[in-house]
Amino acid sequence: MPLQYPHRQKQLESLAQKLGLSRQPRLQWHLLDLALTHPTASTDANYEQLEFVGDAVIRLAAAEFLLETCPDLTVGEFTAIRSVLVSDRILARLAAYYGLERYLLVANSALNDKLGEESRLAESFEAVLGALYLSAHTLDLIRPWLDPHFHQLVEEIRTDPARQNYKAALQEWSQALYKLLPEYRVRESEFAEFSHRFTAEVWLRDQCLGQGRGRSIKAAEQAAAQVAFLAIRQQQMAEETS
Amino acid sequence: MPLQYPHRQKQLESLAQKLGLSRQPRLQWHLLDLALTHPTASTDANYEQLEFVGDAVIRLAAAEFLLETCPDLTVGEFTAIRSVLVSDRILARLAAYYGLERYLLVANSALNDKLGEESRLAESFEAVLGALYLSAHTLDLIRPWLDPHFHQLVEEIRTDPARQNYKAALQEWSQALYKLLPEYRVRESEFAEFSHRFTAEVWLRDQCLGQGRGRSIKAAEQAAAQVAFLAIRQQQMAEETS
Repeated sequence: MPLQYPHRQKQLESLAQKLGLSRQPRLQWHLLDLALTHPTASTDANYEQLEFVGDAVIRLAAAEFLLETCPDLTVGEFTAIRSVLVSDRILARLAAYYGLERYLLVANSALNDKLGEESRLAESFEAVLGALYLSAHTLDLIRPWLDPHFHQLVEEIRTDPARQNYKAALQEWSQALYKLLPEYRVRESEFAEFSHRFTAEVWLRDQCLGQGRGRSIKAAEQAAAQVAFLAIRQQQMAEETS
Repeated sequence: MPLQYPHRQKQLESLAQKLGLSRQPRLQWHLLDLALTHPTASTDANYEQLEFVGDAVIRLAAAEFLLETCPDLTVGEFTAIRSVLVSDRILARLAAYYGLERYLLVANSALNDKLGEESRLAESFEAVLGALYLSAHTLDLIRPWLDPHFHQLVEEIRTDPARQNYKAALQEWSQALYKLLPEYRVRESEFAEFSHRFTAEVWLRDQCLGQGRGRSIKAAEQAAAQVAFLAIRQQQMAEETS
């Protein structure tokens, strides 16, 4: 059913075309419309419910993709790679690729919030996935255009480990294994050179797993998580081959 | 394709019958077989990959169910209820309902680990969902038998809030809103009566959100999380009606 507003319908058709879905009879336009309506534009008919569905859809699409294309990886590696694929950073990048910000109905007040831009893009991208899933009740309207992105991203992640979000990966690992979150302890050194201003340690069960430095708290924590995660992976690989 | 081992095939057919799937041509028996093979029974052909898929499948099934049956709830309530529906405790309960432990191939050494029983059941249940999803690439083999359980569970959760896992709900809320995890501070009092031995406080951004007591650290933390979560929900409801 097309929308009552010809202008909006045209906008959404342009997005559907970019996704290769312009001739898809199953596509429910009113869901796509909702997926691109920010809560500041409508308090009761916005993308929140679709985002709730989309969060599970992207995890499922990533799991299926990894199982089909990288059967040689361990489940630990699946988990680490998926946590990157479904991260706000990557989802916002995909949203930007399709220019979602041009289709998103949002109040001007929210547009001024530059810091919130990444979450806004990631959320509406998840909501679009929710809308496409609920249109077909399969991943048929999603995987044909999403898989090529996954291909490229997985390639990037596998060949350049530093692109991985090690904090997220370490957290998934420690929650799965110990039902605990790693704890970060950060200190600031005024006299260190700029790129080493913060030092972070990551702890789990009274043990320091790694230490890293960076120009921001976040960067230092990521560096510490990377040291810890790679050490754990090394150890696991050694155990598997022994 | 049926399995080569007649005994195992019979076992799996008995489970399929309980799920109402005995005449399902799409059901892939070798996936169901994998889903019911613990890593201690086979290091390279076990349920781990299917569990990785099933974790996303159960989240998607719960999201779709809630959207269809409780459109009156807020997304915050969806999130809180889903975190209960996909918890190890509930998944293990569903696994026990279908007697999965009787179908699970597992080494005796693991069977003696009584503490690990809940995770083992929850994991194999997720893996079964992964196998059923990958057999059809829709939720068609899952929702017909899972929905009635969700109905009953959602009823229980909505009418008796104490059944909710408030720690998980509070964590999802604080991560979504502040990208932070609540922190628990627990102290033990030797002289308190048994049911009040531990006192927990839950903190977020230098603010104590709630305090609770219990006979174990976990119980005290859940009690503190419940106080915090209900207070936040009250406040949100007040803001919505004002």
